Amino acid sequence: MRIAFCCSHTKAAPWLDGFHRALPHASIAEWMPGDSQADYAVVWSPPQQFMDEQPGLKAIFNIGAGVDALMKLRLPPQARLVRIEDGGMAVQMAEYVCHALIRHFRELDCYEDDVRHGAWSYRKPRRRDECPVGIMGLGVLGERVAQAVNHFDFPVLGWSRTPKELPGVRCFAGEAQFDAFLRATRVLVCLLPLTPETREIMNAANLSRLLPGGYVINVARGAHLVDEDLIALLDSGHLAGATLDVFRTEPLPEKHPFWTHPKITVTPHTSARTLRDETIAQIAGKIRTLEAGEPVEGVVDLQRGY
Amino acid sequence: MRIAFCCSHTKAAPWLDGFHRALPHASIAEWMPGDSQADYAVVWSPPQQFMDEQPGLKAIFNIGAGVDALMKLRLPPQARLVRIEDGGMAVQMAEYVCHALIRHFRELDCYEDDVRHGAWSYRKPRRRDECPVGIMGLGVLGERVAQAVNHFDFPVLGWSRTPKELPGVRCFAGEAQFDAFLRATRVLVCLLPLTPETREIMNAANLSRLLPGGYVINVARGAHLVDEDLIALLDSGHLAGATLDVFRTEPLPEKHPFWTHPKITVTPHTSARTLRDETIAQIAGKIRTLEAGEPVEGVVDLQRGY
Repeated sequence: MRIAFCCSHTKAAPWLDGFHRALPHASIAEWMPGDSQADYAVVWSPPQQFMDEQPGLKAIFNIGAGVDALMKLRLPPQARLVRIEDGGMAVQMAEYVCHALIRHFRELDCYEDDVRHGAWSYRKPRRRDECPVGIMGLGVLGERVAQAVNHFDFPVLGWSRTPKELPGVRCFAGEAQFDAFLRATRVLVCLLPLTPETREIMNAANLSRLLPGGYVINVARGAHLVDEDLIALLDSGHLAGATLDVFRTEPLPEKHPFWTHPKITVTPHTSARTLRDETIAQIAGKIRTLEAGEPVEGVVDLQRGY
Repeated sequence: MRIAFCCSHTKAAPWLDGFHRALPHASIAEWMPGDSQADYAVVWSPPQQFMDEQPGLKAIFNIGAGVDALMKLRLPPQARLVRIEDGGMAVQMAEYVCHALIRHFRELDCYEDDVRHGAWSYRKPRRRDECPVGIMGLGVLGERVAQAVNHFDFPVLGWSRTPKELPGVRCFAGEAQFDAFLRATRVLVCLLPLTPETREIMNAANLSRLLPGGYVINVARGAHLVDEDLIALLDSGHLAGATLDVFRTEPLPEKHPFWTHPKITVTPHTSARTLRDETIAQIAGKIRTLEAGEPVEGVVDLQRGY
């Protein structure tokens, strides 16, 4: 069995070592143009040429959670595209979102700023029941985040394409219930896959339906958000702030207003990092399952886009 | 039934209103020197004179979690001293500690600092299994914090005076197991009551037993910590940082080195605020229970000091 590794911006050696250990009978190598013998591919943002040269691929494993970059390529028709599910990412996402939520709700950013200016300050505590948190996207990551937010006793709302039922979450589904979801949400968390339907979903019309003093946490994709609409609503005062981990162009361009906006916290796409050991173990397990002729979880519906 | 309200640094009117609504048949008023008719007292840092003038007190309710300030007073011998348990404080404590823990573990403070300097940076993710969190004090607050830290899959250790068993927590107890607890802890959280035994428990000898790169979160009392010992261990590099919410003198004195130390995050005693509505409801409930001749939870053991 041959595995081709084709991940941009990724040091190959430790991944190849890990796969050698996990699948000692497989042959795994970094892809070079012209290599076209692979049975399986492990990819991150591969070039079109890679796909064009792999007629025999049975499955393509994407080492991140979002497959939107692959949706732009022509894939070998018989190859299944398989996502990483969790692999240590869900708990990181829960951490990142809870940190941003608590920091905003408890005004810890303001207190730290006061301290930086030498001031011992007092702020009236906010009411938890007046801070409903709405999560868009209820897949593996969204569900884990909902559970964590719930743990801190916030009212939790969820919105997904198809109806779901989650303990402790007031669930909304589809276009029909989107308005009601937004109007009941103060802190909006985006964990949606990027598809033609969800692109620019956080625009002026939708963000202005959030409860006054709304807050945006984007940990999905930069293209879910209309950058200038967010800035306008922050500047008008309807929104109180935003924590953004993902951007239309990454790294965030040098002149982008997000870098210095006083109400925006920027982090460099670090909310849920691919953990090498966990990811290798998950992919190796799925390859073994496929080789045994059994179905695997996480196969992308190419029509739906995730 | 008469209730005396004697809380320093607290605006009395909204508390009195709340008690009037919760206990319409009681007479409640702010204490003035000379008033000595109270059956119950609601206090925060009252003067000795208040206690001396209340021969008929059945119970004293402290509106914070820590009763160390009251331990320094002579209390009327027949009065029970009753603590607030939770009253909305436990979830706040869980929030505050998880925020500080995640911020340190995920290096979000460093990323935000990089962004402030215009840098899109990369840091190697830390391993969760190498970041055991040790919680000193396993009362209502400590238990809630342990549960929250557990939720983010950190290894959790707990230390208490008397042996406890908590799900998901490796529990240590007493002097005999203190050394083993410290040597297995990377992030140390202090939630102990302040007693003669726990005063200055975070000193050079004990803090230097933490795993290298240790981190201190103090949300109990300033006197649990020897300030200069913490600074020495931060400056030597054995400890990586600290988040401190409580101090020997509050507000933290203007010239104190904690204000500007680059590895210390200071907040102005805001980790778990007394929430008025929740606290009034809890005290009113306890007064009704006592009046019915039944026992209440949270009675302080004056010998033990908490």
